[in-house]
Amino acid sequence: MSSTTGRAEGRITIADVARQAGVSVPTVSKVLNGRDDVAPDTRDLVSGVIASSGYRPRRRVREHRVDVPTVELVITDLTTAYALEVLAGAEAGAARAGAGLLVSAAHDDVGEDRAWLHALRARRPSGVVLVINRFGGGSAEDVASLGAPVVLLDPAGSSDPSLPTVGATNFAGGVTATEHLLSLGHRRIAVITGIPELLCSQERLEGHRAAMARAGLAVDESLVHGGDFSADGGQRAAVALLDHPDPPTAIFAGSDLMASGVYQEARRRGLRVPEDLSVIGFDDVSMCQYMSPPLTTVRQPLGEMAGESVRMVLEEVRARRKGVPPRPRTAVPAPHLQLATRLVVRESTAPPHHR
Amino acid sequence: MSSTTGRAEGRITIADVARQAGVSVPTVSKVLNGRDDVAPDTRDLVSGVIASSGYRPRRRVREHRVDVPTVELVITDLTTAYALEVLAGAEAGAARAGAGLLVSAAHDDVGEDRAWLHALRARRPSGVVLVINRFGGGSAEDVASLGAPVVLLDPAGSSDPSLPTVGATNFAGGVTATEHLLSLGHRRIAVITGIPELLCSQERLEGHRAAMARAGLAVDESLVHGGDFSADGGQRAAVALLDHPDPPTAIFAGSDLMASGVYQEARRRGLRVPEDLSVIGFDDVSMCQYMSPPLTTVRQPLGEMAGESVRMVLEEVRARRKGVPPRPRTAVPAPHLQLATRLVVRESTAPPHHR
Repeated sequence: MSSTTGRAEGRITIADVARQAGVSVPTVSKVLNGRDDVAPDTRDLVSGVIASSGYRPRRRVREHRVDVPTVELVITDLTTAYALEVLAGAEAGAARAGAGLLVSAAHDDVGEDRAWLHALRARRPSGVVLVINRFGGGSAEDVASLGAPVVLLDPAGSSDPSLPTVGATNFAGGVTATEHLLSLGHRRIAVITGIPELLCSQERLEGHRAAMARAGLAVDESLVHGGDFSADGGQRAAVALLDHPDPPTAIFAGSDLMASGVYQEARRRGLRVPEDLSVIGFDDVSMCQYMSPPLTTVRQPLGEMAGESVRMVLEEVRARRKGVPPRPRTAVPAPHLQLATRLVVRESTAPPHHR
Repeated sequence: MSSTTGRAEGRITIADVARQAGVSVPTVSKVLNGRDDVAPDTRDLVSGVIASSGYRPRRRVREHRVDVPTVELVITDLTTAYALEVLAGAEAGAARAGAGLLVSAAHDDVGEDRAWLHALRARRPSGVVLVINRFGGGSAEDVASLGAPVVLLDPAGSSDPSLPTVGATNFAGGVTATEHLLSLGHRRIAVITGIPELLCSQERLEGHRAAMARAGLAVDESLVHGGDFSADGGQRAAVALLDHPDPPTAIFAGSDLMASGVYQEARRRGLRVPEDLSVIGFDDVSMCQYMSPPLTTVRQPLGEMAGESVRMVLEEVRARRKGVPPRPRTAVPAPHLQLATRLVVRESTAPPHHR
């Protein structure tokens, strides 16, 4: 029993808290309910008494929830640097809107017994942002079946046209990367693509081709190598490219992780970046600034994309609360927003050696 | 209006969904409520009809929440690799327990108007895991004032003794790092500490001292340099240490980020890691495996620590739901759990050059 309550038996009541704090019961109630019509000093005093007394709101009171909307971010895999950018942006977006952010990972559960989907249904979030990654097409359908508004955060470009999506300008990003290398004087430019089946990988490669064509240069197809977004995949591609009889002076990797694999292979061969080999990535995950040398990359604004996804979902939540019916999925096309990519120049790109 | 409903006007009802799917109304209701006593095929069929019809549950139904506990993870800063490990572990812990995970960042809001605290209060999570970092002491008090169970995830060791905490064995980690370097033959071992005021920094340094003493070696105090956990701070410390007239052959950095700063400075001087300088970090954030060379480090099990924190909070949530009163904060000491650190050997450490 806490020595501060002055009661030998029984639970601490809201009246006990009010008496100890020297305020009225309604004031304590306001503090407990997060109302802002309480002076800050009073709020702090009451909060202190609540904390030290061990006061516990009655169950009935606790279940009378204030109507705070919650958005659930569903992501395949929470263990990538990519996920971090998304989470930070979604949290900021939710905080700006005064909404709660729930986070769940679908893990490898997709398409199997989908325990994550049943758990999601039971939590009844006001809206859902689904991060499309290696997700199959069925999952967006599953999430849409919950009845709550859904927005797909879709950097991979694998979008279900019937749901609203937020993506990035992958084609323009590919143009930007190659134009940067061309402007430094590179002509032998290799590309390591992402997973070739994904639209984002195709768009980045097409951007590279467009930039080469604009410069009047042919693309040497033996310098285009498939990848899989992983560091190991980047290293394997770098082995093949650097073994080329006429090797590239620069490599455009379709993700920062693959660029880190290129670094490993360069180091293994005693090649210095950027003196002997320029490397440019894609994404701008936080790791880039800590690489040796810091990585030049094309920034995909994952955080802003996540924030925008949350904003779109909450707009729909608010509209439905006002009685606006949900947009029928078979009618007008859903909005597809693309945020701009941009070049971030660090230290991994430089003019080529003259040979 | 969706063309699939067959109704010209009015909202789609649960009966419409049942008719379209060819099942009973109670079956649709079970699917909507996430019950598991529906055959998977039926569930998929009904979910598909719900998705395509634009059916929206009535407000009253939506607000009758299934009693799923939610844990809110409150963290100062979501933009660090450190945060990612914590989040992934907390999500896994919540998913195992069938609980929802809310995530919020306190940003720089701490100690000011604390909008995050009022928002947290309004969301009424069942329990809170507060990640202690650069947080002031007042924040734990503030969070405790919510009345919900709180556990501090406290890698910094700045613990409030009256609340349950989960941390790591920092002293043992410091011993491990230095013993690894000693076993490779290093004798001139430098240390870059974390923020010197934090208990975790002091414990890691004391672990280093203990390992040196066990080996019968004196600590050269000119090789102990204060840091701040940042990459820039690590680089600044490396400048001072490598300018030493009798420079170290190995550097133990109190965080992986600081180790990345040591890499930058080594590269600037043309020193190869590990051939010319061994480097060991602390934390084992995911970036370590992508560094060139991959970083040897002391793993702090941040994910497991976060999962354990969530488990402890949910245990208290369940106990209170069964009517067990909260532990008075002034009575028995709260539990303080420390999870074990361990050495992860990669490629940044090697025997010293013979000079």
